[in-house]
Amino acid sequence: MADIQAMAHAIRFLAIDSILKAGEGHQGVPLGMAEIAATLYARHLKADPKDPLWPDRDRVVLSNGHGSMLLYALLHLSGHDAVPLDGLKTFRRLGSVCAGHPEIEQEAGVEITTGLLGQGIACAVGMAVAEARLEAEFGPDLVDHRTWAFVGDGCLQEGVGQEAISLAGHLRLGKLTFLWDDNHITDDGDTLLSISEDVPARFRAAGWHVQGVDGHDIAAIDAALEAARADPRPSLVACRTTIARGIPRLEGQRGGHSAPLTPDDRDAAAAVLDWPHPPFAVPEAIRADWAAAMERGQTAHATWQDRHANHWQAAEFARWTEGRLPADWPVRAAELRQAASPAPRGTILASGDACDALGGVLPEMVVLCADLEAPTNHKRGRHAFTAQDRSGSYVHCGVREHLMGAMTCGIAAHGGLRPVNVTYLAFADYERPAMRMAALMGLPGLFVFSHDSIGVGSNGPTHQPVEILASFRAMPNMRVFRPADAIETAEAWQIAMEERHSPSLFALSRQDAPPVRREAGENLSRLGAYVLAEAEGPRALTLLATGTEVALAMDARAALQAEGMPTAVVSMPCWELFCDQDADYRDAVLGTAPRIGVEAAMEFGWSRWLRAGDRFVGMEGFGASDKAETLYRHFGITPERVVEIGRDLATAG
Amino acid sequence: MADIQAMAHAIRFLAIDSILKAGEGHQGVPLGMAEIAATLYARHLKADPKDPLWPDRDRVVLSNGHGSMLLYALLHLSGHDAVPLDGLKTFRRLGSVCAGHPEIEQEAGVEITTGLLGQGIACAVGMAVAEARLEAEFGPDLVDHRTWAFVGDGCLQEGVGQEAISLAGHLRLGKLTFLWDDNHITDDGDTLLSISEDVPARFRAAGWHVQGVDGHDIAAIDAALEAARADPRPSLVACRTTIARGIPRLEGQRGGHSAPLTPDDRDAAAAVLDWPHPPFAVPEAIRADWAAAMERGQTAHATWQDRHANHWQAAEFARWTEGRLPADWPVRAAELRQAASPAPRGTILASGDACDALGGVLPEMVVLCADLEAPTNHKRGRHAFTAQDRSGSYVHCGVREHLMGAMTCGIAAHGGLRPVNVTYLAFADYERPAMRMAALMGLPGLFVFSHDSIGVGSNGPTHQPVEILASFRAMPNMRVFRPADAIETAEAWQIAMEERHSPSLFALSRQDAPPVRREAGENLSRLGAYVLAEAEGPRALTLLATGTEVALAMDARAALQAEGMPTAVVSMPCWELFCDQDADYRDAVLGTAPRIGVEAAMEFGWSRWLRAGDRFVGMEGFGASDKAETLYRHFGITPERVVEIGRDLATAG
Repeated sequence: MADIQAMAHAIRFLAIDSILKAGEGHQGVPLGMAEIAATLYARHLKADPKDPLWPDRDRVVLSNGHGSMLLYALLHLSGHDAVPLDGLKTFRRLGSVCAGHPEIEQEAGVEITTGLLGQGIACAVGMAVAEARLEAEFGPDLVDHRTWAFVGDGCLQEGVGQEAISLAGHLRLGKLTFLWDDNHITDDGDTLLSISEDVPARFRAAGWHVQGVDGHDIAAIDAALEAARADPRPSLVACRTTIARGIPRLEGQRGGHSAPLTPDDRDAAAAVLDWPHPPFAVPEAIRADWAAAMERGQTAHATWQDRHANHWQAAEFARWTEGRLPADWPVRAAELRQAASPAPRGTILASGDACDALGGVLPEMVVLCADLEAPTNHKRGRHAFTAQDRSGSYVHCGVREHLMGAMTCGIAAHGGLRPVNVTYLAFADYERPAMRMAALMGLPGLFVFSHDSIGVGSNGPTHQPVEILASFRAMPNMRVFRPADAIETAEAWQIAMEERHSPSLFALSRQDAPPVRREAGENLSRLGAYVLAEAEGPRALTLLATGTEVALAMDARAALQAEGMPTAVVSMPCWELFCDQDADYRDAVLGTAPRIGVEAAMEFGWSRWLRAGDRFVGMEGFGASDKAETLYRHFGITPERVVEIGRDLATAG
Repeated sequence: MADIQAMAHAIRFLAIDSILKAGEGHQGVPLGMAEIAATLYARHLKADPKDPLWPDRDRVVLSNGHGSMLLYALLHLSGHDAVPLDGLKTFRRLGSVCAGHPEIEQEAGVEITTGLLGQGIACAVGMAVAEARLEAEFGPDLVDHRTWAFVGDGCLQEGVGQEAISLAGHLRLGKLTFLWDDNHITDDGDTLLSISEDVPARFRAAGWHVQGVDGHDIAAIDAALEAARADPRPSLVACRTTIARGIPRLEGQRGGHSAPLTPDDRDAAAAVLDWPHPPFAVPEAIRADWAAAMERGQTAHATWQDRHANHWQAAEFARWTEGRLPADWPVRAAELRQAASPAPRGTILASGDACDALGGVLPEMVVLCADLEAPTNHKRGRHAFTAQDRSGSYVHCGVREHLMGAMTCGIAAHGGLRPVNVTYLAFADYERPAMRMAALMGLPGLFVFSHDSIGVGSNGPTHQPVEILASFRAMPNMRVFRPADAIETAEAWQIAMEERHSPSLFALSRQDAPPVRREAGENLSRLGAYVLAEAEGPRALTLLATGTEVALAMDARAALQAEGMPTAVVSMPCWELFCDQDADYRDAVLGTAPRIGVEAAMEFGWSRWLRAGDRFVGMEGFGASDKAETLYRHFGITPERVVEIGRDLATAG
């Protein structure tokens, strides 16, 4: 029988030693949750540290990510080769696998970058959805694992955490368990400074299975985890803990969270906990218990491999979990582009067309939408993923955008599915913190947004993004697409689906976008920007435009050419891809003639393409309430205005 | 006795007629909540439509803002001159007071721009905090009013709404009442598609007083509002309603939300509800009931004026509520700047110094912080605003940043207090949707953020903003300050406090910022950017920098000048203010020499100041985990690198 208490102390002292060596860190969580974590690993977790990428492993999420030493100690002790003692000894240093907060490194067992508080548990909801959807597709012989999340008070105060509780209960995600570090302490001190609600009652109101235990009582924890596994509802295990348990000076105190540790603290802890071992030393008997604890998972892995070897779906399962496109993808993608509607059509509807057409081609796709099914129109042939029916590929996320963004991260990090996330662009601000994590992790989530400009119309400025394009263009590793018509929209879909290491954002129109390309031909959006219509004659002017303003630029071009001014129109659906092209191509596209940028958004960022003397036609502030046509005229975003400025530039030139 | 049912029908038909005339709109809320609203106005609301700015009026917030016609009908019927019938007839048109969603216009009774779902109730929490704080200061003779919020299902699904529930319960905001339009319908259809939690139980878990009523039963609503007023806890009145009540084709249906109305719908409703009146006509008897209903508020206003006239605090009360600075402000502001620490000091600490020093000067200031009291250090001489003690000027908001941002809007819109909001810059993404509303409304909230760059150090890239400066510089009407040292920080405080029509954002350092200015002198930050150190000799190079990189640029300048390259350093604490200066000043500051921009952030947006051939030293992607000094070296943001590039530019030039 394993000595789980000793296993827990090994976590404690590896955390203390690593934090002492780093000179800073957050000891509160690893010291407070050591028994919980050791019991989970010793008795319940299904994992094989020798194959951290095994698709049917349990997922562990550290939502209280500042307590990262808990995770690193667990990964080290459970035998992940990629987390050696040297990793712990370089905690919080450049290049160490043991970064300040967990950063996704699945080969080392770090499942996800949880980022700021609350998002980890929201990602965990996404993982649990992924598991349930995959089990429905491939059956429990291939997919049958759980998601465990370590959770702090902060995670449960954050709105995104509350959204996670609500939807997980609604979807009855029975394989999801939250292990709450109920230590009564936040950074400011006693939790009573800012919260007095009955947290278990809040979970029960959302349909969760709720248990309370002494978080240092191993037998009680063990029983609670057993009960959590047996219950068909998602489970909260509220673990009453003492923050920084084991360090007399800090335990139960505000300073327990992250006050600098001293060698004296270590000595005191070693005396209290009877731990006579030198720094970073773990006695062989304890290491042996840890190794034995992992045998359960290794056995499960071996039997899974047997089942998998002869499974009729093994090839398709591999394709999904490895994130490969089907063999006939090039043909399918070409069909997708050729099928793009030649009629004027909101690009959000063109995107819905593409999404629907890909339903059969990429059954691994799962669409999430935040209560805007009708106006975004991406459900169509799909049916809902519900508490009763896990075969659906459309998740009604409710009016919970931040959760939806984090679920997208969780689904993508889980592997096996391709998440697509749909709402209005104005709500991108709600999702932004999660989208930032998708970009930081390099996860291939697709974020589809409709109602991308003042073209929204009479709903008014609160719902009209004018600065949101720029705000995401500023974000590293986020590809921002604003397609001009149905063909560019289909091209963007192809690019996003082929991408493995970046999230993509689509900014799409509610209002009709007249087609600017007549034939699909090759995927020109791959270039980021291209000459849609060359000047007839030596270029006197270049119009740079995106989205619905490309058609407007084409109208202006016709008028300018009629006035004898040879004008080129450059469509720029994705700045980031254009930046990736070589300078010769960029120079050729942009040309040397005077330029006018046209976009129904703020100018911020456009100076990347506009030189002194070039001009911009767009927004100078927030929008207003009225129909799209009226607003475009009101704000001077019209072909006539472009023509007028074009004339000025010609006169000046 | 007023015929409240007829008053409600007047709301209904004004909404129907306005939406029909506009050709679109959301009828679900005004038709479903007509009895609730009419009862509130007829029996409970304290307001005087003839003086919509009366400081002691009850505040009404329409959190389900798409139902804006409910609010406009109420404002019209209750006698707001600024909402005439012509306003209703131009619903959703440019220039109309009746915009698509409510846009702040307090002279017309529109208290706040609620924006996207959930934010309205979070703003309402801010208003209730403002009321309680002001009552503690001035007593109930001057301040004793309530906050009422109309709330939809979406608001309660949003995380920010959940944060609002939690904190309002904790702070026991007894004068806050939510009127929940429990109609079982969201945009996607039945609420059961995305939520199955026990909402009243969730409120009870947070310490609310909860009642359930038939939302069309006027007597029941009246009794519930009476009980809500009597209870010391915040109150939820869960009103079971029928969406689009009165239109047979749509009531209780998904289409009730916003499906296009037809004249037939109006005819059918008129028949069912016995409303034989032509469009936009309200019978005199009903108008008389509405007028009589407002007499209660007018009487209250008159007695308040009597109390106010001779109140010993009347002058100070007027100064607070009118948002005027004290008479000796120029002297105090100069003292503030002169007191700025000459020692190297994190600018977040310099900001804490200023905030603390202003405690006695601007007692109307209230500081909100999201569980980061110690590292942001803005509490100091303040004590907490709590359920028991309303005299405090520091609100422990808990780990609920989005709520905090919306509360800042609510406090500023309420009037009487100056809200200051404090957390880490990485969390600005959580607050962003509320900050956007502050910018759109032109409210003078101050958003103070610490940990503004990779200087955060070992907490790693999740906590290191690299794109967030740019994302807010892209936002209209948001002033983004990144001060270089304590003096510039004090200058920014002065500017922010003097500003009445824009929010301000401070991006401040955790790490020490060496002083770059020796003497306070005049407030140079007002210029947005200025020559901190002119070149000794004809300018060969101009370094443009912000924040902690200004000192770095000064070090580079010293080295470059030693190498015979006369170099100027321009500090740019606020781009927006610099853009407001005339072109001659800007040209003089920027000069014609080659330029290097230096900022520990992404380059996006810097092309506004950098021409072809100019260079940028900053970040090219996300950060990493290690100490600040190591990271600056790792990412090449060093004086040495600036010097090297400066040499290149000189050779090329």
